[in-house]
Amino acid sequence: MKIHGKSYRTIWPSADGQAVEVIDQTVLPHRFATKRIAGLEDAFDAIRTMVVRGAPLIGATAAYGLALALRRDPSDAGLEAAHRRLAGARPTAVNLRHALDDVRAHVARLPSAERARAGFARAAAICEEDVENCRLIGEAGLPLIEAIHRAKNRPVNILTHCNAGWLATVDWGTATAPIYMAHDRGVPVHVFVDETRPRNQGAALTAFELGQHGVPHQIVVDNAGGHLMQHGKVDLVIVGADRVTARGDAANKIGTYLKALAARANQVPFYVAVPQTTIDWTIEDGVRDIEIEERDSSEVTHIVGRLDNGDIARVAIGAPGSPALNPAFDVTPAELISGLITDRGVSPATRDGLLGLFPERKAA
Amino acid sequence: MKIHGKSYRTIWPSADGQAVEVIDQTVLPHRFATKRIAGLEDAFDAIRTMVVRGAPLIGATAAYGLALALRRDPSDAGLEAAHRRLAGARPTAVNLRHALDDVRAHVARLPSAERARAGFARAAAICEEDVENCRLIGEAGLPLIEAIHRAKNRPVNILTHCNAGWLATVDWGTATAPIYMAHDRGVPVHVFVDETRPRNQGAALTAFELGQHGVPHQIVVDNAGGHLMQHGKVDLVIVGADRVTARGDAANKIGTYLKALAARANQVPFYVAVPQTTIDWTIEDGVRDIEIEERDSSEVTHIVGRLDNGDIARVAIGAPGSPALNPAFDVTPAELISGLITDRGVSPATRDGLLGLFPERKAA
Repeated sequence: MKIHGKSYRTIWPSADGQAVEVIDQTVLPHRFATKRIAGLEDAFDAIRTMVVRGAPLIGATAAYGLALALRRDPSDAGLEAAHRRLAGARPTAVNLRHALDDVRAHVARLPSAERARAGFARAAAICEEDVENCRLIGEAGLPLIEAIHRAKNRPVNILTHCNAGWLATVDWGTATAPIYMAHDRGVPVHVFVDETRPRNQGAALTAFELGQHGVPHQIVVDNAGGHLMQHGKVDLVIVGADRVTARGDAANKIGTYLKALAARANQVPFYVAVPQTTIDWTIEDGVRDIEIEERDSSEVTHIVGRLDNGDIARVAIGAPGSPALNPAFDVTPAELISGLITDRGVSPATRDGLLGLFPERKAA
Repeated sequence: MKIHGKSYRTIWPSADGQAVEVIDQTVLPHRFATKRIAGLEDAFDAIRTMVVRGAPLIGATAAYGLALALRRDPSDAGLEAAHRRLAGARPTAVNLRHALDDVRAHVARLPSAERARAGFARAAAICEEDVENCRLIGEAGLPLIEAIHRAKNRPVNILTHCNAGWLATVDWGTATAPIYMAHDRGVPVHVFVDETRPRNQGAALTAFELGQHGVPHQIVVDNAGGHLMQHGKVDLVIVGADRVTARGDAANKIGTYLKALAARANQVPFYVAVPQTTIDWTIEDGVRDIEIEERDSSEVTHIVGRLDNGDIARVAIGAPGSPALNPAFDVTPAELISGLITDRGVSPATRDGLLGLFPERKAA
């Protein structure tokens, strides 16, 4: 996708082939900067300090980090140590582990001298696979937008929550992939971007992405979606998810559930866009079985922004001394979800619907 | 209610009898300060710059402002000029107009020499009436909290949105009146305070009020309520309203509707607390007929808070250049409302229910 008119991915090999570069997401949307990752510790720091974030991008960064570590020490011990170090950067990130296991399996049987180069190639392939998965999600979701445009003959109003955008992946994003694809192919879209308190990834990242790529959009507070849907201002909701259960319940950023309730009450289609790796086939009932992380209350009581002079500052916004509670995710029950947009196509949010797309899971 | 352990109202006659004093709500929750209102222009400024806010408190301040103006010029022309000036301070505030008309009607037939004193007494009476109305709302709502406490034998978890607290009235508040009354009478309560973006009146004002009065509470982002209700963490929702229609639809701060949907989906009782003056008997269908104000988009893209050094600063939080949309209120349809808590008692949110409490409206 584009930034300042130039096409970017979130991670790419540096021109000298000795490192990778990433967009520094800690300073977005206030500044645009890139960081060079030349070795294991650079990758570790980038993941841990959230220079890179979003499950697929974390995985891609870790894969490159492991490959770069092998340049310094391609021994079995070096491979294990680097794997262990990177896996600890964000211990709960499943994609991180998958990507590391993938690269390790790929290089483990090779002679030491070939490992670094093979690892680098495998990391690049992981990136390509992520781009392709997101592109397939875009292709799967695009007809939903096209159909609304044909029926209404005006720009399609889409509401999204949080950042399931290309900044969380290598390119395209998940929820945003159908939106970018529609825009690029001349189907007019307008996006309502939920700001997504407490961390404001909507206002900060999704709005930045859309604005840079030229997609018409407006930031709204998380409170506004119900009103907009009640008044026919939203044609379609598309969100991402951190985990989808075998029956189609979707865990996503806190507040997603409220939008799903409003969509159902106002007959607005509500779709969840995910790569198949996000489906957890071991869980059925998401409300019962997905534990919701409670994050630090300072994310609620404080906020980071730009002062008039351009400096970045953190301000306290609540009553001094008032405690806060900060559940980070919620679960939208499958019955509120119109469909799941995956890299294999669109399926109903039901066990049978998902098994229709993934018949190989029927045996299990 | 209490601040720093001392009982306050939001407006009170100064010790010298020459003015009134108010709490300066523009610097809350960051600082506690009072302002002296000694004449017409002080009252006008206090209303216009939101030193005082909340419909009942605006009305009370205007009433005192008119009385203070009559000290300087008690003539018919002076009365009319002061009325006109104050009515223009917040043109859409209905209570403001009512309070001004009330004081004017009260003093118009009196000799000039008696007007200022009579106006001041009438303004004081308007304040007492507001306190009494809020107290009656508290008495009406208290049994709802007591019943939950009896049934569950643990602190009652109440969620509220925005600030329908005592800072918006003269004392007690509307949605908060039953909560303060329960707390003061030893019924244990815990309040989830929606921060209420974009202006954060929940995090700033409701949390401040509750904290100062000693009521246990936690600030949550507006996104959290659905998740909390889904997991049985909320026993009761009480909100205020800016307008209630004859059939019980309620216009209130944006986001209220989303909480009502979540309450319904999770069988959580959802009550709207209002004085009878908030009921607009001329409107039935609130979604169709209540126009929703769109406020400046900078309320969404910027936020005010305290820097670490204690200074107050405004920071931009969104992507630079991204536009924002800022609808300020939404309408919760009556069918989502368990009941209306009024100064006449609790009624179903239906036309017949309201007419049961207000039989004098049947003729009309």
